[in-house]
Amino acid sequence: MQKDTLVDIWKIYTRAIEAVDPYIACKNKISVCDGKLRIDGTDRVYNLSKYNRVFVVGAGKATASMARAVEEILGKRISSGCISVKHGYTEKLRRITQFEAAHPVPDENGMKAARTIYECVKEADENDLVISLISGGGSALLPLPAVGIDLKEMNKLTQLLLASGAPIDKVNCVRKHISMIKGGNLARAAFPATVLNLMISDVVGDDLDVIASGPFVPDSSSFSMARNIIQDYGLTESVPDSVSSRILDGCAGRLDENPGINDLVFKKVDNVVLLSNRTALKAAKKCASDLGYNSLILSSSIEGDAKNAVDFHVALAKEVMVSGNPVKRPACLLSGGESGVVVTGEGRGGRNTEFTLRAMERISNLEGVWAMSLATDGTDGPTDAAGAIVNWKSLSKSISIGLDVQHYLSENDSYGFFEQTGELLKIGPTNTNVMDMHIFIVC
Amino acid sequence: MQKDTLVDIWKIYTRAIEAVDPYIACKNKISVCDGKLRIDGTDRVYNLSKYNRVFVVGAGKATASMARAVEEILGKRISSGCISVKHGYTEKLRRITQFEAAHPVPDENGMKAARTIYECVKEADENDLVISLISGGGSALLPLPAVGIDLKEMNKLTQLLLASGAPIDKVNCVRKHISMIKGGNLARAAFPATVLNLMISDVVGDDLDVIASGPFVPDSSSFSMARNIIQDYGLTESVPDSVSSRILDGCAGRLDENPGINDLVFKKVDNVVLLSNRTALKAAKKCASDLGYNSLILSSSIEGDAKNAVDFHVALAKEVMVSGNPVKRPACLLSGGESGVVVTGEGRGGRNTEFTLRAMERISNLEGVWAMSLATDGTDGPTDAAGAIVNWKSLSKSISIGLDVQHYLSENDSYGFFEQTGELLKIGPTNTNVMDMHIFIVC
Repeated sequence: MQKDTLVDIWKIYTRAIEAVDPYIACKNKISVCDGKLRIDGTDRVYNLSKYNRVFVVGAGKATASMARAVEEILGKRISSGCISVKHGYTEKLRRITQFEAAHPVPDENGMKAARTIYECVKEADENDLVISLISGGGSALLPLPAVGIDLKEMNKLTQLLLASGAPIDKVNCVRKHISMIKGGNLARAAFPATVLNLMISDVVGDDLDVIASGPFVPDSSSFSMARNIIQDYGLTESVPDSVSSRILDGCAGRLDENPGINDLVFKKVDNVVLLSNRTALKAAKKCASDLGYNSLILSSSIEGDAKNAVDFHVALAKEVMVSGNPVKRPACLLSGGESGVVVTGEGRGGRNTEFTLRAMERISNLEGVWAMSLATDGTDGPTDAAGAIVNWKSLSKSISIGLDVQHYLSENDSYGFFEQTGELLKIGPTNTNVMDMHIFIVC
Repeated sequence: MQKDTLVDIWKIYTRAIEAVDPYIACKNKISVCDGKLRIDGTDRVYNLSKYNRVFVVGAGKATASMARAVEEILGKRISSGCISVKHGYTEKLRRITQFEAAHPVPDENGMKAARTIYECVKEADENDLVISLISGGGSALLPLPAVGIDLKEMNKLTQLLLASGAPIDKVNCVRKHISMIKGGNLARAAFPATVLNLMISDVVGDDLDVIASGPFVPDSSSFSMARNIIQDYGLTESVPDSVSSRILDGCAGRLDENPGINDLVFKKVDNVVLLSNRTALKAAKKCASDLGYNSLILSSSIEGDAKNAVDFHVALAKEVMVSGNPVKRPACLLSGGESGVVVTGEGRGGRNTEFTLRAMERISNLEGVWAMSLATDGTDGPTDAAGAIVNWKSLSKSISIGLDVQHYLSENDSYGFFEQTGELLKIGPTNTNVMDMHIFIVC
């Protein structure tokens, strides 16, 4: 019975991970028939004979896999292309040039890639099609500071903003105003070519302007907002002069604002989220239903502290047990997103092992309940595990081998804990990333 | 359309409140036919001809209403009875004596009531039936300290424990060890009479030993646990001498432990949760489904910080909008429990208005989303409102009349905020309490 449930969970998450494999998904969702390019699940049709040239660009950890699929689908219809990927994330490509660059802190290689991509789309004219392949990490892999700002200054700005405690949307607002790529600036460079921007979303809510900082997406912020953020977080004196004079110049109306929602350039751009957390959840749900579970996708937008997310899932699992709501047993509750962990200890672990460790504590009196949390990229924080799987007996088993949960929690050493209980989930790097997935089973 | 949704929400929560009306529920769920007493939804049958006498006891804010129904159902089969209710919560009763007592801080009247009830059940023998009617507030309304401890000392202990930061289950553990009623002690007094204990649950998870501190429910804690709590929270020097010597006597084995799960006395006790948060949610779900909403009960055990609870509900509402999970639009998501609020400001408001104010902020970009939170007792914290109702337009409307949400949140003045927007929900005292209910509608 227990063994069976473990196998079921293995099947469910394996199907979910397969469903967000970039290569397989591109091969399944993109097709060319009678010279017409179609994207599955949308009514978009690109008549390839209309275009003189097809360029492929992109950046992100999953982008090389996407590019391999696109090369196989489009073959010699691709005129040329260039992508920027993290070191070690290349694939065998024939037509598209790959740059290996640093992540998460951008380097000169990334800049070379970004400049090549910028020039590629700039060259494209109204008779050309630009296919863009964007995935998680794309922002760091496409560093192209505006004229007058160098890479070091750009990186320093990022560092200052992150250290200031400014929320991520404010950090990104400022960064979009010193970049030639982010905040729709790549769309402006590509105009008047037609752009098909295919994205794998690694952000909560799939906000297009957040995925890789939205190179082809309208920017709703302004130079004066960027200036206010620098002032509000006390960075006026510390940001590099080049940054401060650009932001000020922009405010003085001497620079164009980033293209907004009504800008002409976006009439030529199609933004398509090809894969997201929801894709994984839907595949997991189908698999769980096929296995006989009453399955429910709660949300793909779970964020905030992992502890609170656990509380909510446990409240639902309890309700399943007592009243058969929201679904009857055997139940499979699915959710996704990216919870955070406030790190105070020195231990090893990531969001998902911490989520699972907290869940383990809470389900120990709920017979028949299992909990799993995993990072879809296979790498939970700085560890080699994707997450962990526990059930209602895990707490007492851990006590019996002398482990003190509270100690491991206070040290943020959830990896160390599960290393000893044998409940770590190691699946290796998946070369995709649609954030995290949580599975609660009530047998 | 909007008007209609408001009417729908009104219908949904009105049906929910009706379903937990103590008088109506007792009348619907308890029946006597051919001399047999039956409780709806359970297979319990009490052959009244078997018993010489029927005593009715109880305590709580809803207990007078329950007693009125029981008097109407059992009539002259009731030999006598006594209940303890909060000042102003009496009903017209013919056979059962009512004591009006203080709540939440116990007074001498409560003690008189408790002593009368204790003596009543003590008098009952194996040929008698004791029907107990317990509802929220019952713990404070049944103060009967053990021999040697007076009311003042008991109240001081409660005060010290609450101020120490000890979690409520630890506070209750100590209190159960200085009481002649709590922690199963009333069951011991009633033995060998048969006891039918009917409860309205006002606690998360419906833990029987927590409802009114479980006068008829096994206690899993011990004197030594009570002593450790007093020591761990640094109260050894400050608790009254009478308390400390009783706890020490218990630890030395000179006093009996409270009756535990295997104690003989519980063979004669039936504990039945007549109404709970789940009762309200089920009625709300039925009503919403009848109105055409795809309805889902998430959980009746929502607790923790209101802000986190809001986040989770909003994540689900978003998912409904984007993908039709966990249910398609028009959707009605229902949940209940009791969230907390960390009070730092000086304003007016309760858990439910604060929940709704935080929800208002978060749903302002979610067209078609409504949120409501209400206290089923009609009294949200120290206010005369039960809660509030908002929709996606509420934030911008509030800004247009010059209100600053952040200011009201930091002052914990959610009542003051909604007083000005006209979105308070005032339904008056309902004389019942099954905690709070949250409704999210996605039109």
